[in-house]
Amino acid sequence: MKIIVDAFGGDHSPSEIIKGAVLALQTAQDFSVVLAGKEDVIKKELNALQSEPSRIEILDAPEVITNDDQPTEAVRKKRASSIVAGLRRLADDEQATAFVSAGSTGAVLTAATILIRRIPGIIRPALAPVLPTVKGGHVMLVDCGANADCKPVNLHQFAYMGSAYAKAVLGIPKPKIGLLSNGTEDKKGNELNKEVFPLLKEDTTLTFAGNIEAREILSGDYDVVVADGFSGNIALKACEGTALSMFSLIKEGIMQGGLRAKLGYLLLKPVFRGVKKVMDYNDNGGAVLLGLSKVVVKSHGSSKAKSIAASVLQAKELAEKGVVNTIAAYLTKKES
Amino acid sequence: MKIIVDAFGGDHSPSEIIKGAVLALQTAQDFSVVLAGKEDVIKKELNALQSEPSRIEILDAPEVITNDDQPTEAVRKKRASSIVAGLRRLADDEQATAFVSAGSTGAVLTAATILIRRIPGIIRPALAPVLPTVKGGHVMLVDCGANADCKPVNLHQFAYMGSAYAKAVLGIPKPKIGLLSNGTEDKKGNELNKEVFPLLKEDTTLTFAGNIEAREILSGDYDVVVADGFSGNIALKACEGTALSMFSLIKEGIMQGGLRAKLGYLLLKPVFRGVKKVMDYNDNGGAVLLGLSKVVVKSHGSSKAKSIAASVLQAKELAEKGVVNTIAAYLTKKES
Repeated sequence: MKIIVDAFGGDHSPSEIIKGAVLALQTAQDFSVVLAGKEDVIKKELNALQSEPSRIEILDAPEVITNDDQPTEAVRKKRASSIVAGLRRLADDEQATAFVSAGSTGAVLTAATILIRRIPGIIRPALAPVLPTVKGGHVMLVDCGANADCKPVNLHQFAYMGSAYAKAVLGIPKPKIGLLSNGTEDKKGNELNKEVFPLLKEDTTLTFAGNIEAREILSGDYDVVVADGFSGNIALKACEGTALSMFSLIKEGIMQGGLRAKLGYLLLKPVFRGVKKVMDYNDNGGAVLLGLSKVVVKSHGSSKAKSIAASVLQAKELAEKGVVNTIAAYLTKKES
Repeated sequence: MKIIVDAFGGDHSPSEIIKGAVLALQTAQDFSVVLAGKEDVIKKELNALQSEPSRIEILDAPEVITNDDQPTEAVRKKRASSIVAGLRRLADDEQATAFVSAGSTGAVLTAATILIRRIPGIIRPALAPVLPTVKGGHVMLVDCGANADCKPVNLHQFAYMGSAYAKAVLGIPKPKIGLLSNGTEDKKGNELNKEVFPLLKEDTTLTFAGNIEAREILSGDYDVVVADGFSGNIALKACEGTALSMFSLIKEGIMQGGLRAKLGYLLLKPVFRGVKKVMDYNDNGGAVLLGLSKVVVKSHGSSKAKSIAASVLQAKELAEKGVVNTIAAYLTKKES
């Protein structure tokens, strides 16, 4: 199994990305990595790491797509970029099962949607991060940004794609699904949600638990939370922003709190580390692009080596556990 | 000036509500309070508080609307409820300038929209909480739940209603407005946002700063954040939920961390109290129902006396500073 890694995407590329790929190779066997990007730079980095090159291949892709590029235009024009060349390789190479990037979300989404075949029947792929919950488990949020405008059928598909992931990868036999809304009552929601609600309720293959408010996303009471990509993105960023704000407020308070606060901080350091571990979704791998016939994982732009390694191993697990087939099987069964 | 307070709404009613109203009366002069609810119960509570009754009037309203009631039906059927009777009094009594409730948001919204005249020209009133920012200031989020489905013109009106509030009450001469979206680029957003963007950009009476992500809401860089009621509600609840989750994770860590963690907690207590004060929007008053010809403030359901007092004083300030007139003047100017 080959996993293609975009070595030139993300705030800390290429150094941390390459380190992360090497770390993943050291952690697990039975796969190899294709590093896409500027060959000479990658070679230098690998030399510096004194890394055994037998399980690493370099795919020379001298162009770089940045967050400042307009995604559609960049994908069309920068064909020799690590994102486009990497995804093209994923599409063409039968041994290649997954692609991992910490680069521009828009460009990865656009290129993957163009270059990688969708699972037959899936209308719109969705970007789905796996978030940590306060109970120590995980919840998948589908969609969090691939589709700003959705039809009811899209959200229905997000529900069973998320459910298939939770079954195959997280090993949950009956994943509990919540529909993100502005209240918990059955009749709550905007027009879209009100149309989606009966679709999920009547689908006996799903374990639908009704509408949920955004404050319940991280509660641990749900395995999958379904949303249109606009609302899902807002929920995700609001959670992220609040967590960061709180950490920075605590830090500021400690800095200004004199010796007493600094001593308190030292004593509470293990507690803070624990909280940070739970709230930091970078450690939990990247967001999965569900609905494509091969695995694509979008790691956070701020990913360092550890996060990249987690994303590579997550991609490997996704490929091994056959999430694509689980989704495809659901669709076949549903239509038969 | 009379402020009508719903004594039978919220998790801690009537006791904490009545205490809060009395606290507000003790804090500021030149206004009186009308307590709406079961007369005998209110009398008993006031006796227990040994409160001077000269500035308190009781409006007997024996029925109670709970969160379990379907709002539209409850408003139609429970005419003698504290919400309906209180708002009717607001509409009819010229001396009454504001209504404060910690009861069912749906019922307050429905009853207020039916009973209180809209400002001429305003199509849909909006529910707008004033949130604390990490910089120590405030930001108003309009709308956060009154309108699950919006047209572009609604969001345009939300922008100048929020702007009018920030000018009149917060004293900000040119309130900076952000449009809540799934990215900061001008072209980001769902179809609704893409139509709203040029309306805000071309309105020279507004200081429009472009699209913002949900993580920036609490940053302190914006005075007003505009959203449809569905997305706004999700952003608000996600912020609230994450803050609560983090506090509970820290608490749990301290409980399980033995003597060391407990000592650390004691030393850091002032820091935590400071952070809680910033993140707890209950202390910052309630959500304002903007667009009506009189002031309606919806306090959080979990409000205790202190929050209720803050909401009553906020309502008083809103009435005194003439937010209604500021909005009305904007509309007149715009149409002339």
